[in-house]
Amino acid sequence: MTETNPNEIVIVKSENSKINTVDFSNLIFGRVFTDHMFVCDFEDGKWQTPQIMPYQAMTIEPSARVFHYGQAVFEGMKAYKDENGKIFLFRPNENCNRINKSAARLAMPKFPEDYFFKGLETLLRLDSEWIKPGVGNSLYIRPFVIATEPAISASPAASYRFIIICSPAKAYYNEPVRVLFAEKYSRSADGGVGFAKAAGNYAAQFYPTSLAQKKGFDQIIWTDASSHKYLEEAGTMNIFFRIHDKLITAPNNDRILDGVTRKSVIQLAKDLGIECEVRRVSVKEIKAAAKDGSLKEIFGTGTAAVISPVSAFEHADDVFEIDQIKDSYASLFKSTLLDIQHNLSDDKHGWRYEIR
Amino acid sequence: MTETNPNEIVIVKSENSKINTVDFSNLIFGRVFTDHMFVCDFEDGKWQTPQIMPYQAMTIEPSARVFHYGQAVFEGMKAYKDENGKIFLFRPNENCNRINKSAARLAMPKFPEDYFFKGLETLLRLDSEWIKPGVGNSLYIRPFVIATEPAISASPAASYRFIIICSPAKAYYNEPVRVLFAEKYSRSADGGVGFAKAAGNYAAQFYPTSLAQKKGFDQIIWTDASSHKYLEEAGTMNIFFRIHDKLITAPNNDRILDGVTRKSVIQLAKDLGIECEVRRVSVKEIKAAAKDGSLKEIFGTGTAAVISPVSAFEHADDVFEIDQIKDSYASLFKSTLLDIQHNLSDDKHGWRYEIR
Repeated sequence: MTETNPNEIVIVKSENSKINTVDFSNLIFGRVFTDHMFVCDFEDGKWQTPQIMPYQAMTIEPSARVFHYGQAVFEGMKAYKDENGKIFLFRPNENCNRINKSAARLAMPKFPEDYFFKGLETLLRLDSEWIKPGVGNSLYIRPFVIATEPAISASPAASYRFIIICSPAKAYYNEPVRVLFAEKYSRSADGGVGFAKAAGNYAAQFYPTSLAQKKGFDQIIWTDASSHKYLEEAGTMNIFFRIHDKLITAPNNDRILDGVTRKSVIQLAKDLGIECEVRRVSVKEIKAAAKDGSLKEIFGTGTAAVISPVSAFEHADDVFEIDQIKDSYASLFKSTLLDIQHNLSDDKHGWRYEIR
Repeated sequence: MTETNPNEIVIVKSENSKINTVDFSNLIFGRVFTDHMFVCDFEDGKWQTPQIMPYQAMTIEPSARVFHYGQAVFEGMKAYKDENGKIFLFRPNENCNRINKSAARLAMPKFPEDYFFKGLETLLRLDSEWIKPGVGNSLYIRPFVIATEPAISASPAASYRFIIICSPAKAYYNEPVRVLFAEKYSRSADGGVGFAKAAGNYAAQFYPTSLAQKKGFDQIIWTDASSHKYLEEAGTMNIFFRIHDKLITAPNNDRILDGVTRKSVIQLAKDLGIECEVRRVSVKEIKAAAKDGSLKEIFGTGTAAVISPVSAFEHADDVFEIDQIKDSYASLFKSTLLDIQHNLSDDKHGWRYEIR
C-alpha cells in the first residue's frame, strides 16, 4: 500500500481571481475569502491526497456528525508581507500543535505536521497577491477540521475533512473594548474542553455576550465556573492586567486557551524587563486596584485582535473606567509584535516563518 | 410584506423510494435515512418558505459559522406505528419547546411551533412506510438547526437552517451497559450549556468516553465539575438509582438535560406508587448502597435508549457489579412507556400525539 504523500497536492487553480472585486480598505473581518482553499479528507483510517481548489461551497450530508455532535476544531493564524514582498507566518508550529491537541480532546485524528505546512505554504504561494504589505494588513488563515461521516450516532466519526480558508484582514478590534466580568454564565468547566479551540466553546458564549452588549459592553471576561472569583480569558482573547508596572495573567489550565499571542507577550515582557506574574487573578484584587488607582491597564491578546486595550470593566454593577495611558504596555507590545511579524525588527526567538 | 405561511410547504417528492434497499431487521442506529427531509432557512430576519425534498447532501460554504463556532442544536424524537397503521409521536411539544430553549442559549432564532408541527407531520405522512409497526420498531426523528452564514467572525450568525431527517431504528442499546463515574473530566459547567442539546456538548464527551471504553465501560455518568461528588447524567441518558424500593434522580439544573423520558418516568413512578426523590445523588451514597446491598438498580432514560439498565459501575478503581433483578423498575418503566408509545395502553396524561 502506498502512503499518501503530502508533496503530491492535487491543485486545481481558479480560472478568474476575485481579487479585483475586493475593497482592501474596507474589509469586514471574515467575510471575503481568497481564490483558493486547501482540503484533505480523512477516510479509511488515513488522510487522503490533499487538494487545493477554488474556494467554493462544499457538498455535505445533513447527517454529517459535525452538525449534530460538534466535532469541529479550528485555528487562527495570520500571514504578513514585508515591503520586499516576502511572506511570513508567526510561530505556525504553535498552531499546528494546538489544532492537534484540540482534535485529540474531541477524539479526532491528528493532522500530520508535514501535510499542514505543505498545504499552508502551497496555498499561500497561490494566493500571495491577497496578502497586502504594511503594518495592520494581514491575511487571516483559518485551518479547521470537521467530522463529515453521515451517521447520527453519538460517537466519534470515521471520516473528517481538514480545510484551510483565508480571508484578508485589518486588525480585529479597532477601538478599546468595554468588558464585563462574568458572574453567572461560564465558558468552560474543569475537566472540560475550554483549553481546546473547539467550535462549541464559541457558540456557548454568544448569548451571555449578547446580554453584555445590551448593557453596553463588548466582551465578557470569563471567570472560573465554580466560584466566579478568578478572571480567566475573554473567549477570543487571553487577558493581561497591569498593576503599577507589573503584568499579571492567569495560568493555563484545562479551561483556558494556550494563546500564541499570550505566550509571546510573556516572553516579550521578559525581554523588555517588565515583570510578568502568571498566577490566578482575583476579581477582588482587580477591583481594589481599580479603586486605589494602581490598575493601569487591562488588555487582551489574540491572533485576530493582536493586542486589544480595555477601556472599562463592570462587575456586580460597579463600573470602572480605565484611562488610556500614553506609553502603555498594550501599545508597546502591539508595536513590538507587529514589527516582528512584518519583518521590521530582529527576530531573536525565531518566531517568523518565511514562506519561500 | 407577506409573512411566510407554514401551511405552504413546497414539496418535491423523491422519484424512487430507497425503502426496498433497507434491511429493517439489521439496522445500525442513525445510518439509514428515509426518502425525504424537511428544510427551512432563516434569512433576512425570518424563517422562509419551508420545503420538503428528497433526502440529499447539502451545499454549504466552508465559512459557514456552524463549522467554526458550533452554533448547532438538535432534538431526538421517535414516531411509532400501531397494528392499525396509526402513527404516533410521544410528547412532541416537549421537543419543540426544548429545541427553542437550546437555540436561545446559543443565540439562535426560535423556530415557530406551527412550522415545527406542520413540517414534521407532513414529512411523516410522506415517509410513513418507513415506520414499522411493532414494539421495538420506531422511526428516529432528528430535528436540528445549524448556522449557515458564511462569515468567520465569532458572533451569532444572521442565517440558519432548520432540518428534520429521519432514520428507522431499533432500541439504541440492547445490552445492559457498564458505566464509569467521572472523576476527572466534565461534561458541563455551572452557567454553561449542559442543559441544552447543543452539538458541542457531545463532541466534548467522546474522548473521555473512549478512555472509559478502553477500561471496559460503555458510558460515563458525569458528575458535577466542581467536586465530582454528585452524579448528574450520562450524556445521552438521564440516570435513575433505585435504593431499596425508592428511586432517586438528580434535579434539573443548567448542567443537566431536561429529558422527556426522565420526566415521563418520574410521572409513571407517581402513577405506579413508586417513591421517586428528585435530589442530588452523591457518589458516596451510591457506593455505600452498592456495598450494603440496598442498591437494586441503576438505569438510564432517553429517547434513543428508552430505558437502559446498568450492569456495573466503577469509581476510584472500585468496580461494582449490579445483578439484573427480575421485575426490575427498568423493565416495568420500559414496557409501560413502550405500551403508551405504541398505542397498546391507556394514555391518561395525553402523551401520545397522532399524526393524521
